[in-house]
Amino acid sequence: MNSDFNITIVGLGLIGGSYAMALKEELNPKNLWGVDIDAKTIETAKNMGIIDDGFKDAKIPLENSDIVIVSLYPELAIDFIKSNIQNFKRGAVITDTSGIKGKVVGEISSCLPDYLDFIGGHPMAGREAKGLSYASKDIFKNANYILTPTEKNKSENLALIKNIALTIGCSNVVSVDPESHDKIIAYTSGLPHLIAVSLVSCNNFGNTQKSFIGGGFRDTTRIAEINPDLWSELFISNKNNIIEQIDKFQSNLSILKTAIENEDMIKIKEIFDSASKKRSELNSNE
Amino acid sequence: MNSDFNITIVGLGLIGGSYAMALKEELNPKNLWGVDIDAKTIETAKNMGIIDDGFKDAKIPLENSDIVIVSLYPELAIDFIKSNIQNFKRGAVITDTSGIKGKVVGEISSCLPDYLDFIGGHPMAGREAKGLSYASKDIFKNANYILTPTEKNKSENLALIKNIALTIGCSNVVSVDPESHDKIIAYTSGLPHLIAVSLVSCNNFGNTQKSFIGGGFRDTTRIAEINPDLWSELFISNKNNIIEQIDKFQSNLSILKTAIENEDMIKIKEIFDSASKKRSELNSNE
Repeated sequence: MNSDFNITIVGLGLIGGSYAMALKEELNPKNLWGVDIDAKTIETAKNMGIIDDGFKDAKIPLENSDIVIVSLYPELAIDFIKSNIQNFKRGAVITDTSGIKGKVVGEISSCLPDYLDFIGGHPMAGREAKGLSYASKDIFKNANYILTPTEKNKSENLALIKNIALTIGCSNVVSVDPESHDKIIAYTSGLPHLIAVSLVSCNNFGNTQKSFIGGGFRDTTRIAEINPDLWSELFISNKNNIIEQIDKFQSNLSILKTAIENEDMIKIKEIFDSASKKRSELNSNE
Repeated sequence: MNSDFNITIVGLGLIGGSYAMALKEELNPKNLWGVDIDAKTIETAKNMGIIDDGFKDAKIPLENSDIVIVSLYPELAIDFIKSNIQNFKRGAVITDTSGIKGKVVGEISSCLPDYLDFIGGHPMAGREAKGLSYASKDIFKNANYILTPTEKNKSENLALIKNIALTIGCSNVVSVDPESHDKIIAYTSGLPHLIAVSLVSCNNFGNTQKSFIGGGFRDTTRIAEINPDLWSELFISNKNNIIEQIDKFQSNLSILKTAIENEDMIKIKEIFDSASKKRSELNSNE
């Protein structure tokens, strides 16, 4: 892939920092700049050699960047782009990495001039941690990358972001519309987090209880170590879809509860059999 | 540990087969016999060298065994022991490996003659699979082993089963009363399985949805590949505790749902923070 670009990454946290590391190693663009509100983070990123230079004020890097990757929480990403409209270089391709798309794409597209192209993006990669110190170029290895194009996006720019995703290690780039993204993510990502949190919250862990905790409990609660700031925002921003998924889930669990109350072994086995087959469909992708 | 015993394992499935493998390797008792209803399983176990001899009829091995490990589903374990009371050797120590204890210990203790000692046992080990072909001596490595003694059990026999558990690779043997076992297991094991099943059952997986599935969804649904026969029996046998846990969980999830509906960010963050801290308590044991 052609690497003759200037790229700016806004937000040098877990995802932004990992993106910088991966780009430096796999693409090594003409210039790779970082923007962050924290001077110490910028210093660390420069010392690690993952950015060529870092800025608290975005004006200079944006004016000279062909590609801008905004790696901030959704509201901050929207605010950042809106308040820096005048600073972007003509023809720049802007993308984000946030976990919701309808609101982000909608708000940004409606205020973007024609000479800029914003493509909603969401690398399906991450860790239950925050901050540059947890960043790793490997988080993208074999991950999927979702793009949420609209008819405003130019096909050559979509191809560009797609190639970047593949270059940093992603195995697959999938395009869906922003609303479908939010609907699907509420199930595949939102709901599991809420479930893990609710499960952990049921009881306290004395030493005796801890002896009963095996792989099943650990796996089902792993993502309960949740980043409260990020996820509270993601859930509220996608609340209708989230609530729909919670309702479906609670309904399923209630059906199982009733079957157990009624000692309806046939019904229970039917549900288990069906779930087991369904879950095994994912194994070929594991 | 002294290995001058004859040991019989009843039920050469995943757990019984693994137990045989581990005993052969780590203890190598005077004789290690297997009992199973399936001739082919017995043949396979003999060919693998994990038992010295195998029997469809339990009479002969039981008459000569100092220790009997009954590795059958709960109802079958109860039936087996009751129908073989006359066959056990005087002074034999009998234990089981099933996932519920109140019913099993209660029913067996009430019909056991004084010259036999039944100790409820539950190795916290396993895999989402069934049958001898999935057995492995390694499933006990670093696992916990629960014993559920009653005042009928002799302390030297408890020590014996404890030593066996440690010898086959378990890191820790914990004793609780049978009712407490069932209460705790409903939370740490039962509920996660029901959650995983209910989560998987919410939606279908088209190719697009599959691209959105990451580690979080996989981890939270891993145990949805559930053995329907075993688990339907475990849930029904422990239904009061299971229903109590389902109710607690649903209540927690409903509280979160309401907080999201109300966009109560403070409440959501409070719940997430608390769950995150709680889950991290388990990390030192991981």
